[in-house]
Amino acid sequence: MTLDWDGVTHITKVDPAKPLPDALDVLEGTDLVIVGGSDDVTEANTLEAIRAIDDAHPSTPVFQEPYSSDHVSRETIDAADFVAVPAVYNGDREHFVGKHVDLFTEVGRTPEELLGAGLPVVGDFVASKGVDAIAELTTSLIGEGYVVQHLDSAAATTSGVEATYTPEEVAGAALATEAFYGFPIFYVEYSGRYGGPEDVEAAARYLEDTTLLYGGGIDSQEKTTEILEAGADAVVVGDCFHDDPETFRDTIPRT
Amino acid sequence: MTLDWDGVTHITKVDPAKPLPDALDVLEGTDLVIVGGSDDVTEANTLEAIRAIDDAHPSTPVFQEPYSSDHVSRETIDAADFVAVPAVYNGDREHFVGKHVDLFTEVGRTPEELLGAGLPVVGDFVASKGVDAIAELTTSLIGEGYVVQHLDSAAATTSGVEATYTPEEVAGAALATEAFYGFPIFYVEYSGRYGGPEDVEAAARYLEDTTLLYGGGIDSQEKTTEILEAGADAVVVGDCFHDDPETFRDTIPRT
Repeated sequence: MTLDWDGVTHITKVDPAKPLPDALDVLEGTDLVIVGGSDDVTEANTLEAIRAIDDAHPSTPVFQEPYSSDHVSRETIDAADFVAVPAVYNGDREHFVGKHVDLFTEVGRTPEELLGAGLPVVGDFVASKGVDAIAELTTSLIGEGYVVQHLDSAAATTSGVEATYTPEEVAGAALATEAFYGFPIFYVEYSGRYGGPEDVEAAARYLEDTTLLYGGGIDSQEKTTEILEAGADAVVVGDCFHDDPETFRDTIPRT
Repeated sequence: MTLDWDGVTHITKVDPAKPLPDALDVLEGTDLVIVGGSDDVTEANTLEAIRAIDDAHPSTPVFQEPYSSDHVSRETIDAADFVAVPAVYNGDREHFVGKHVDLFTEVGRTPEELLGAGLPVVGDFVASKGVDAIAELTTSLIGEGYVVQHLDSAAATTSGVEATYTPEEVAGAALATEAFYGFPIFYVEYSGRYGGPEDVEAAARYLEDTTLLYGGGIDSQEKTTEILEAGADAVVVGDCFHDDPETFRDTIPRT
């Protein structure tokens, strides 16, 4: 699947540990769904969420965004259109580079070495499909350059974030993404709290090929508009999807 | 300048703190020159080395590979064809991500904010040329995914490398480069000591779009051949260039 970002302005982040709303038609106005979270997330509830969303909205792209490699399996990789992997600029070494090298080291082991080695699911995925699976898996991976701007959030704790970035540093991380690391996505994450347009404006100045996403505290049409006008390609809306469909609908950009 | 890697199999690494050989015609058989080093390297001796090499061999591409941002100036950026910036996989956080975000944060500051701020040379470069300079500078930057495999080397000390990688981890870092970080170069650096073909073989298996370089202890035709046959695109030859032209000539692949 090739993803065309052009029409994507509204993204829903689904926490697979929370119950889905009874009626998934609320997702009608969203352009893309990201499934992922940290607390109580498992491979099984991730897969269940991806499949339920895909059944209800087969033409809407679905990303899995795993917090840990044991959320990933052959089934989740097959079910999701892409596996989005965050690299956290203001996190610790592990969450920008360490765990990715570990992941690719595991992926790169030859199937023969994997068989019978009792390895985790990514290894199992490669073992069961052979070396071609490596190409398939790496094609479905999308890197996301992340900045986590809310210290009191699970995302910050999980990624070892000890300080937020100034808008100048956000711009620097955006420019580094565009010109050096080349991740297709740059993601400003305020995780549960509205951060306003300042970081988005700072980042947007240097992003041309990179898609700019903003997430955190979007709970009205006004906030969606403010963030999109500041230069984000899309807003990512999470919490209210699970428990407040009316507010959720209000975050969808009116065209 | 666009660089065509196709004909590049032999690269010379020039330490600007060491005297150049009297006769630069020894560089005739090399395809590319990298100027950089740590001890006693300055912006001034870097610039002098780049200009001397460019005068003697105007059609040979020259990279500057700075160890520190104070080796970089408007003059070195203009004189070199590319500025190659290492990101060290097995180094500390600073040398994979920290200093790059700092660099791009500095680059991204607006010229107005820079003027009169007494900032280092990269800032001065941007201030003197305006915002277009940012595009120019980022175009001339090339990311290098590095693995430093010799603990007792200046490269390891400078980059905070505390452990070398196994061949499996080298393969993992290579795959991460190809599929996730997207640096155009993956560089296995044995820095002064010959490491043999094993890491190169491991890395080459997963590199298609990425150029694979090997450096360290190349002092004969046999070693050049062994590394190229293991799958490297080019060998990088350093020490003997400065003090042993006969050995240096022997490292150039015979076609």
